[in-house]
This record gives sequence, C-alpha cells and structure tokens, in this order.
Amino acid sequence: MIPMDAATARAAVRGLRGEGQTSAEDAYARAVWSVLVEPGDGVAGRLVAEHGAIEALRQIDDSGDPEVRRARARWAPRGQPGAVDAALDAARRCGASLVVPGDAAWPTRLDDLGAHAPLALWRRGAAMDAERPAVALVGARASTAYGEGVAADLAADLAAAGVVVISGAAYGIDGACHRAALSAGGGTVAFLAGGVDRPYPRGHEALLSQIAATGAVWSETPCGAAPTKWRFLSRNRLIAAMSDAVVVVEAGWRSGSLNTAAHAATLGRPLGAVPGPVTSAASAGCHRVLREYDGVCVTSAADVLEMLGVGGPPPPASEHARTDATTRLLDALSARTGRSADEVARRSGLAPEEAAILLGFAELEGRVQRDDDGAWRTVARDKAAGRPG
Amino acid sequence: MIPMDAATARAAVRGLRGEGQTSAEDAYARAVWSVLVEPGDGVAGRLVAEHGAIEALRQIDDSGDPEVRRARARWAPRGQPGAVDAALDAARRCGASLVVPGDAAWPTRLDDLGAHAPLALWRRGAAMDAERPAVALVGARASTAYGEGVAADLAADLAAAGVVVISGAAYGIDGACHRAALSAGGGTVAFLAGGVDRPYPRGHEALLSQIAATGAVWSETPCGAAPTKWRFLSRNRLIAAMSDAVVVVEAGWRSGSLNTAAHAATLGRPLGAVPGPVTSAASAGCHRVLREYDGVCVTSAADVLEMLGVGGPPPPASEHARTDATTRLLDALSARTGRSADEVARRSGLAPEEAAILLGFAELEGRVQRDDDGAWRTVARDKAAGRPG
Repeated sequence: MIPMDAATARAAVRGLRGEGQTSAEDAYARAVWSVLVEPGDGVAGRLVAEHGAIEALRQIDDSGDPEVRRARARWAPRGQPGAVDAALDAARRCGASLVVPGDAAWPTRLDDLGAHAPLALWRRGAAMDAERPAVALVGARASTAYGEGVAADLAADLAAAGVVVISGAAYGIDGACHRAALSAGGGTVAFLAGGVDRPYPRGHEALLSQIAATGAVWSETPCGAAPTKWRFLSRNRLIAAMSDAVVVVEAGWRSGSLNTAAHAATLGRPLGAVPGPVTSAASAGCHRVLREYDGVCVTSAADVLEMLGVGGPPPPASEHARTDATTRLLDALSARTGRSADEVARRSGLAPEEAAILLGFAELEGRVQRDDDGAWRTVARDKAAGRPG
Repeated sequence: MIPMDAATARAAVRGLRGEGQTSAEDAYARAVWSVLVEPGDGVAGRLVAEHGAIEALRQIDDSGDPEVRRARARWAPRGQPGAVDAALDAARRCGASLVVPGDAAWPTRLDDLGAHAPLALWRRGAAMDAERPAVALVGARASTAYGEGVAADLAADLAAAGVVVISGAAYGIDGACHRAALSAGGGTVAFLAGGVDRPYPRGHEALLSQIAATGAVWSETPCGAAPTKWRFLSRNRLIAAMSDAVVVVEAGWRSGSLNTAAHAATLGRPLGAVPGPVTSAASAGCHRVLREYDGVCVTSAADVLEMLGVGGPPPPASEHARTDATTRLLDALSARTGRSADEVARRSGLAPEEAAILLGFAELEGRVQRDDDGAWRTVARDKAAGRPG
C-alpha cells in the first residue's frame, strides 16, 4: 500500500527522531500506521504485535485473514500517496518528534493498553522522566470558580511535590491544572485528540506552547489530524494509561471526564474525584465517580499523594474513641460548683476508688483542681472545649 | 440494694406501661438498672442477660464474681432510696412510657448491640412501626445554609417516601432534619442523651414536643438525668442501631456525628455521607466518612433509598460507551459541507461498505441527510450536541 524500503524510511523520518533508538524503518512503518488507522484500532494493534510494524504493513495487502481483509477496507481510503509524507512534513515544521515503542522516550505505561496501545506517538517538547509519579487531573470545560480554584490548588501542590500533572488542555478544569502546574514551576503534560501541530482549543495555543517548552504535548494522531469526538474519547484512554492515578476535579453528569475515569477503572489505575456541593450540577459527575466507580474522595493534594502511596498514613478514624472513664469523670464535674469525690463518683457512675484515681491524674494534667474544702471542680478552660452533638 | 417484690414493682410502674407485655417486676427491675448504671455498661448487660433483670439485681449484693464486685462499687453510689421512685415519678409527670425488652414496643434493632444494648428505654410519644424503614440523618450543630438545605431536602423526601427519620434533636443539621420530616407529614424520632423530661437543647423544647406528638422521643437514661458528654456518645450508638442506614449530612472534622458513623460501621449498618465543597470545613467530617469508612456518597434521597435496597437500580456507568462506529461516522460529517460516502469512509477510518450501512441507519434516525448530488451532511441539530472534553 505504501512503498517501504530502508532508504525511503531513513529519508522520511529524518529530523523527527532525536532520541529514537528504534530503526528508521520500524519508526517509519509506525508513522504509516498512525496515518492509516484510527486510534485504538485493535486489528492493527494485533497485526503489528504479531508481525512487527514493517511486515504488518505488507500483510495489509497479502493477508488472507478475513478480519484483516475487512480492516483493509477501512484503512485503504487513507493509503493515498503523499498522506504519510504530508504528516511527516507537518511534524518537522512544528518541531515534533516521532516516538515509537522501543525508544527510550516511549512511555511504557501505555503498554498496559495491550492491543489498544498506540502504534506511535507524536510529541512537542521533551520526554517525560518515567520515574516521576504522574497524576491525571481532568474535568469539564463547563467549570465553576470553585472547581477551577480546587484544580489550581491540587495541580500546584502536586507539581511542587514533584508529581507530573497530566491533562487534556481543554478549557475549564484542564487548563486551570496545566496553568497552576506551570506557575508552580512543575512538570505538566498535555494529550491532544488531534495533531500536535493543531493547538486545540485555539484559545490555548499559547498555553500549549508553554507546556511544550517545559513539559510535553503528545498525540497519537499524526500532524494535520483534526480533533474529532472519537479521537477525544480515544485520547482519554492515553491520559488514564499514562498516569499513576486519575482524579476528576469537577465534572457534570455526562462530562467526557467520566470516560477518562472509566478507562482508569478498566486499567486498574487508582481513581478519585473531588466532591462538591450536591446542589451543583458541575460536580454531579464527580459524585458519580465516588458512587459508581467507588472512587476515592479527594480533598487535597495530600489525598492524591496517598493514592500514589507516597503520602503519610491517614489520621486514625478512631480519634473519637476518647478515654471513656475520663470523659465520664469530667462530665460529672463543674467549673462553677465544687463537688466531693463521692458526689463525682455517683454522678459519673464510676466506683469511688476509680474516680479518686482519675481525679488525681486529671489534677496532674491541670484539667481539674481541688478547692481548700476538698471539693473538686474543672479548670475553666476545659469547659470551653465544647460538647459533642 | 433496692427492695424488690411484686406489689412494690406493680405500684412503682403504674401508668408507665401502656403497651407493656413484660411483667411489672421485670420492668421495674430494669427501671432500677437504668438508674444505677451509665449507658452501655457491659457488666450490667452481661449480668442481666445471664440472670434476668430481677435476679441480677440480687446478684449485685450476692455475687462473688470480682468483676461484679468492682462494678458494685460504681453502681452503689446511685442506689440511694428514693432515686428510682424519683425517676419513675418524673416519667409519669411528663407522660413517658417505660419500654423494656419483651414489650411489643421494644425496638428489636437494638438487640444488635449485644451486651451493650440498653437495659430499658424511656419514651415520650408513640411506638415506632418496626416494619417501616428508618434512616438516621445526623450532622453538626455548626451547620451552614448549604448543609441545612440539603438536610431538609433529604429528610422531607425520605419522610414522604415513608421512611422514619431518626436524629438527635441538636441544633443545626439534626433540627433541620426533624423539622423537614414533620413538615412533610412524615415520621420522625429523636434520641436524647438525658432524660426525656429534660428537653435538650432548651431551644428545641417546642420541636421535641412536636416530635413526641407525632413520632417519639426516646432515651435510655431515666427521667431527671442530665445530658453529659458520655451520654451523648452512648446515645449515638442507639441512633446507629435503630436505623437501617446512617447518613452524615454535614459535619466538621471532629464532629460528634463521626462517632455515630463509627457505631454504624461497627454494627454493619450502611453508612453514607453528603459531600460538600472541599473548601468548607463544615463538610470535612463527611469527606472523612467517605474516605476513612468507605461511606456511600449521598447526593439525594434516591441514593439513600438505594442504600436501603428499596430504590431502583443505579443508572449504568457505561452510559458513555457510545456506539463507536456511529461516533466516528458523525465525526466525519459536517452540517455545512456535503461529503461523498467515500470521503466519509476515509475521514472516519471506516470501511466504505460499513460507512454506507451506518449512513443509512443514521438517515433513518434523522441524524444525517443526503443532498440531491448524493453528498452526506449531518442534520444541523446534531451539531448542537456538543463535543466531549
């Protein structure tokens, strides 16, 4: 379908393979695949896995497998001469790299997608340090000031903690996360649905350039590709797969972020959501993640770090288990009225001997005092501690 | 310790046993126990379970068990002559009933507390229909307008659905729940920490009378007993045990409602919490319930009914799994520009034959139309559906 020889391949990918360790032929073959197929094409994935990208290209024409023959019908309309060259030229013009499996820069987290892993990636910016923890912060374009504020706090705190913030560069929550991570001097990465040479949305052209300058802008669709609904949905699986945890910051009931959450659940990535007022439609999708996906309730960057296993332990839930006898002892005392030890025992329901011992301890702690006549009373500041409801 | 014969018992509990099926002697013995011991006294619970309430009273003086002898030291200060009579007289004055295990009015849900079940209960108002589902709605006194609004919506909707709303009659969330349940004409029940003859807080005296007039006000402490911190904490176990599910509506990090939630978790009662803004300290306790107790995220009465198993099934989480091929087909079309079927196939990455079939279906559904020259375009309203982020 596409002419394939070593010299052609080397010429075609020249200037696009800065850190590429894989052979030019293989990289070129994968570039061809990325032009021929829509993201997540399982038949292409299996064919490439079985034969390698180069031989798989030949199999398009030669294979007798009925599945491949059916797939050929959908791939062939893209196999026009010049389509691959156009994508490669556009990539060169915008300074993008072609990254393929086997390259040191290939994000191996994506291999968890199996047959639905991308066949190649296009990148503006630098390779991500694979050792750094990465968290996807995603959300709706129709965000509120509350959601944007929480998004910015989370992204800035995570970035400051050395976590790479991954998002989709959309208006609303995505943009707030990228901007805050950049402001904090941290690493941030965007995944686009269309080609990396087509900043989308247009209003984020400058933001995407900033992201590319310090982090990276990735796409699996070739340069020139338009962002389509299908590609947004497919792109979401990459955001989930690239992350060690996914957090939906603010999202309505039908937000596309829920699609990213579903991918995270499928991949077994820790999944969380930031709650909001139940009266806010903009948080309804987050509450769905908590309810339907058993997502973690995220209230701060510390909660996200805990999801990554890099935070401290949570505070014990048993904090409320006060020392029962001491509670009863203090209940039986007053700051205003002095009471005999026997009276305290009767009121508290404690044995007089136990009450006497506990009064002694409480006195040492400065919580109670003894009047000259031997009557006990609480030290006034104790009364200010309040009464549980 | 306390004189105990049939005639004394019958006289003592006269007028307090409207629906009482248990013998007067047993009821009287339990009234004595409720005066002698603090709520949740495990030694008393085991002694009564082993010997029955009447014989257990004799065992206080006669038992050689070291645990009972130690307990005797804390019970004895309460065993003053007249203390029981005073409690019974106070109950008669406020129209309270003495309810004990074996009575038809005894709430058998409390038996789940085992040795920590109350030995007797005091009630203003009517017995609760044991067949009706009951939900505890609890929360902090320091509530916000948001929390009170959600509390009122939940309580009114649940009460209208025939669910008994149980709470603690405190200011803030508790009060909002009781009031809304009453306004909806539904059943509501309050559990107090002190005697049912001592309305607490005082500002809820009228509310408690309304609750008693249509539902019930319960306590395990005898009439005359003051509400103490210990009794608030003990009371919370009754609220949890009496309910088929417990929902924390709004609560700060250290709210007493978390103690009720802990009891619910211990008892295996379904536990939920209403989320709020993570920027609101008044919701921090709810988020703890979601995080630390794996509580259910509650956004509406329907969510609570689902916890009870009486609601419909949840909407499927897979709603986002649109028909992939159709998504790609529609992506490849425009409302403004007509495109040939082959062009649509190329743009969508679908085989021309499949694209043709799907175009036919979409035409039948009124989503696409064919121009006179055979070019396909989407029907304009489809474009208004928006693009996922």
